[in-house]
Amino acid sequence: MQSEKVQSLAADMRRLAEAARDASRALARADTRAKDLALRAAADAIRGRTKQILAANAEDLESARKAGQNAAYLDRLALDEKRIEGIAKALLDVAALPDPVGEVTQSWRRPNGLEIRKVRIPLGVVLMVYEARPNVTVDAAGLCLKSGNAAILRPGSDALRSSLALAEAFAEGLEKAGLPAASAQVVPTPDREATFELLQLDDLIDLAIPRGGPSLIRAVAERSRVPVVKHYQGVCHLYLDESAPSKQAVDIALNGKVQRPGVCNALECLLLHRGAAAKLLPVVGRALAEAGVELRCDPTALTILKRAGIRAVPAAPEDFGKEFLDKILAIRVVPDLDGALDHIARYGSLHTEAIVTRDLANARRFQREVIASAVMVNASTRFNDGGELGLGAEIGISTTKLHAFGPMGLAELTTQKYLVEGEGHVRQ
Amino acid sequence: MQSEKVQSLAADMRRLAEAARDASRALARADTRAKDLALRAAADAIRGRTKQILAANAEDLESARKAGQNAAYLDRLALDEKRIEGIAKALLDVAALPDPVGEVTQSWRRPNGLEIRKVRIPLGVVLMVYEARPNVTVDAAGLCLKSGNAAILRPGSDALRSSLALAEAFAEGLEKAGLPAASAQVVPTPDREATFELLQLDDLIDLAIPRGGPSLIRAVAERSRVPVVKHYQGVCHLYLDESAPSKQAVDIALNGKVQRPGVCNALECLLLHRGAAAKLLPVVGRALAEAGVELRCDPTALTILKRAGIRAVPAAPEDFGKEFLDKILAIRVVPDLDGALDHIARYGSLHTEAIVTRDLANARRFQREVIASAVMVNASTRFNDGGELGLGAEIGISTTKLHAFGPMGLAELTTQKYLVEGEGHVRQ
Repeated sequence: MQSEKVQSLAADMRRLAEAARDASRALARADTRAKDLALRAAADAIRGRTKQILAANAEDLESARKAGQNAAYLDRLALDEKRIEGIAKALLDVAALPDPVGEVTQSWRRPNGLEIRKVRIPLGVVLMVYEARPNVTVDAAGLCLKSGNAAILRPGSDALRSSLALAEAFAEGLEKAGLPAASAQVVPTPDREATFELLQLDDLIDLAIPRGGPSLIRAVAERSRVPVVKHYQGVCHLYLDESAPSKQAVDIALNGKVQRPGVCNALECLLLHRGAAAKLLPVVGRALAEAGVELRCDPTALTILKRAGIRAVPAAPEDFGKEFLDKILAIRVVPDLDGALDHIARYGSLHTEAIVTRDLANARRFQREVIASAVMVNASTRFNDGGELGLGAEIGISTTKLHAFGPMGLAELTTQKYLVEGEGHVRQ
Repeated sequence: MQSEKVQSLAADMRRLAEAARDASRALARADTRAKDLALRAAADAIRGRTKQILAANAEDLESARKAGQNAAYLDRLALDEKRIEGIAKALLDVAALPDPVGEVTQSWRRPNGLEIRKVRIPLGVVLMVYEARPNVTVDAAGLCLKSGNAAILRPGSDALRSSLALAEAFAEGLEKAGLPAASAQVVPTPDREATFELLQLDDLIDLAIPRGGPSLIRAVAERSRVPVVKHYQGVCHLYLDESAPSKQAVDIALNGKVQRPGVCNALECLLLHRGAAAKLLPVVGRALAEAGVELRCDPTALTILKRAGIRAVPAAPEDFGKEFLDKILAIRVVPDLDGALDHIARYGSLHTEAIVTRDLANARRFQREVIASAVMVNASTRFNDGGELGLGAEIGISTTKLHAFGPMGLAELTTQKYLVEGEGHVRQ
């Protein structure tokens, strides 16, 4: 019985992926007008179906509550009229972005007269695996559609009813534009094995994007035969160099830690140059403490803060390299820039790293030597975001160096092929 | 005992990968001059050690011969003075290429004044898994070095002694330039499990490139936790459209099939428009047959060729979609361009596809709708090659859409990070 069930699930997932593959062929040929029409019609349909979507969401919330999920989790899962309007609006924003497909990124002529162009094409079929956040279902479907990819959407099971209701509205938009309904499919079962079955189908699926906590990412990466771009955690550091001006140090530390502590480009660890700690730490620490941040400090930082009458606690070794996603900050005093670079190389997560300095040489060394998808000089880590960097909407922030490192916008959902034109050219 | 041996192999491979990771940090900081100096000194060292290298190669050849390997295999394994000179020369060619690292590919300013640059950085550590071809050891080591990556080189076991001898010479070049010897390491054991141990180390290795036959690629893709860019087979098609001029048809078919039949961008299947087959097939078929090509035909093509007195045989169903790598060509007559597009979508391998036509609309449709790393119009499939396209040397031709689709040159061995500069900018 068990094995029969597994076989039937595998067959279902293959059929779903085959439908996505077929849809992706049509999407690759679809012109920008049709895709934008679908996006706008989907936005309308979502607005029009607000009631049904909220009803489905209420059921999701009810069972998540019964399962004992915490308030932050329920908040991410919950929809209301304003949030649904936000979801619809996001589709209109994607419709307004330029179509990456067909863009010629380079072209040149060879000495033998061959003409060569590199042109963007869709990846094909993209599998998104994410947490119980219904808005991601529509965001991902919209970005995939605009970039000509079919999307297979796999939300956390607590968001399944909401996601199916949203996907139904999205399909209405697709239909209006004459595009296949299988362009955006929500996996219709909460069975966890469904994900692993899909991850075996490297003949049908071109890319898997897991977005969520460490255990989700690890499970996907370990069991996938489909290429994976990980959207993993951000253990982001801010290093205050000896010459860091106090005001910038305070502003950037505070913005990084407090503006939105639960996101991946929030600050998790503050490093200070030994020569500046006595001056900077009291002001920066006070601002953070007043904003309700718990400061977990190495002995040097702890002494300075205590002396200044600022509440702080000793850091445990595991506080360095930790993604708190909360109003908690690890603090360490380092001997110099090299100390900061060593700390970041050891504890960073390739996501976002920042320095505040007035020293040009140190700024340049920091930019050159830090390996991270974004390296900030005198700017908040919070700017590592597709919208803030000017890429338009993003499907997430990749911490995988391959293919896309950093925010993944529409261009990063494409690949490029070579177009070569000759007049009977043959190779010598 | 067995499990002790496995544990010790795992520990050895981890140590090797850790040394590569450390070396990659130094390489990322190395300037172009040092890398080029190392490449030139390595070329000198290879020339200077010709005798030792040939002696090691003789041992490799001896045991491969005893193991019953065929002539083509032994030819790919064999070195002589001329080939060693070619290997050294290839390093000088790489030294002469521009350094991709540090290249700013885009830069812009945001409305808030933030300045943003995208800059190329090395991937880190690259694992090459390939067949018993000693020249690949040095080619890959050279391309990785120039692009700032540490290389772990895993040749087929029959090429181990030759590869170790070449790597020793390469290390001499690294030493002369003050770069770490672990920048290019050959896995020093023929144990097949070593590859699988390395493929588990996604904390230390950034990219695995398998290059070889289907079973090698499959084994690597299935068992790797490290991101994989596959350099897989090429089932390349040439479609002769109704308007194809005879001379171009003959030249391009012949060049694709005969110039070097054993490579991945060689032609494996000829498709002809029904309306042109009676005219084109006799001339094209005769030229191919005279060049010693076995023609495996669908019934329509077979009838035309027989009538013209040209030797041909019926195709088996499995001849379509097959990579012959030999003087064998599958031939099919299709109703029209759509028939050709359908055939290619079904049997192609995303590598290289070509059309010969005088019809602009058909050329454009073929370019748009065929999904392959290179799409040729009136040019031979053999041009899908890093050197021929003008990218400089290549480490292989990727058939994975992610990261790099098509020839992988130096730029494709890098990733890009964002450099963001502000003046105390914080996010609103």
